[in-house]
Amino acid sequence: MPGKTDLATFNCSLARALNDVGDWWTLLIIRDAFLGAQRFSEFQRSLGMARNTLSDRLDRLCAAGVLLRGGTPARPLYCLTEKGRALAPALVALQQWGDQFASENRPPVVVTDQRGRPLPRVKLVDGDGAEVGPRDLRFRPGPGADARTRARFQAMKQPQKVSE
Amino acid sequence: MPGKTDLATFNCSLARALNDVGDWWTLLIIRDAFLGAQRFSEFQRSLGMARNTLSDRLDRLCAAGVLLRGGTPARPLYCLTEKGRALAPALVALQQWGDQFASENRPPVVVTDQRGRPLPRVKLVDGDGAEVGPRDLRFRPGPGADARTRARFQAMKQPQKVSE
Repeated sequence: MPGKTDLATFNCSLARALNDVGDWWTLLIIRDAFLGAQRFSEFQRSLGMARNTLSDRLDRLCAAGVLLRGGTPARPLYCLTEKGRALAPALVALQQWGDQFASENRPPVVVTDQRGRPLPRVKLVDGDGAEVGPRDLRFRPGPGADARTRARFQAMKQPQKVSE
Repeated sequence: MPGKTDLATFNCSLARALNDVGDWWTLLIIRDAFLGAQRFSEFQRSLGMARNTLSDRLDRLCAAGVLLRGGTPARPLYCLTEKGRALAPALVALQQWGDQFASENRPPVVVTDQRGRPLPRVKLVDGDGAEVGPRDLRFRPGPGADARTRARFQAMKQPQKVSE
């Protein structure tokens, strides 16, 4: 796996996002923060992970601005920042994917709105609100593209069809 | 990090999703597949990862049903299955998060619809289509919850406020 520095230098916002939140434990810690966990012991009990690993991941998430350490030094509390909360659509979409493909449509946990109504499936939509399916997605270099990214798009060929 | 087996046994669809797609390389391989990469050499050139690691991740993604191996044994092609394409909302949401927080709103790559119009931000919405903010999310045990998940929700206390 690439180290922290490698991914941060990728000319790709997905790689850069994964640099902050891209390992299993990290995303599950954020999940627990959404579920209301705030204390070291709560994360530890929920995830059953080694204390030094948990401590390291919490430190990194605070350094990345995803969690904020509050409380007292003896009894710290960890809560999501705005940046951390902004991960909600990605996390819910990934959880729904797991509900469908890895939990046989029997979700262990249901995500709802304030009134307890389950959220519908997260969709990609266009500017008019019409759903955009995965096959209709297109990609192009953006304002942050470097020379390598531009060259890559220029070299890209039409993909060949693989029958399913 | 937990091994494959550990995460698959979690009573949580997010953990189970991460079991299939939860490391940096894996998600970047899927990104490249969305961008049109199909050959080993294309993934290798794009990601610059070790050949044996790439080979291992491609094998796992085929075993997980995310990629399909086609072409010929001598020149295999890898393409996304329906299960793989269903990751699009999660990937685009995570990329947009990276655009905002790790790429200073200058996206290296812009995701568009078929007509080239950039996709708006991925939102969580309720059944009426109104946006549900991260603070308005609620969680409850679902039909796939096991005894431990149920007990956990019962034990959950109201989180304390941490000032920002």
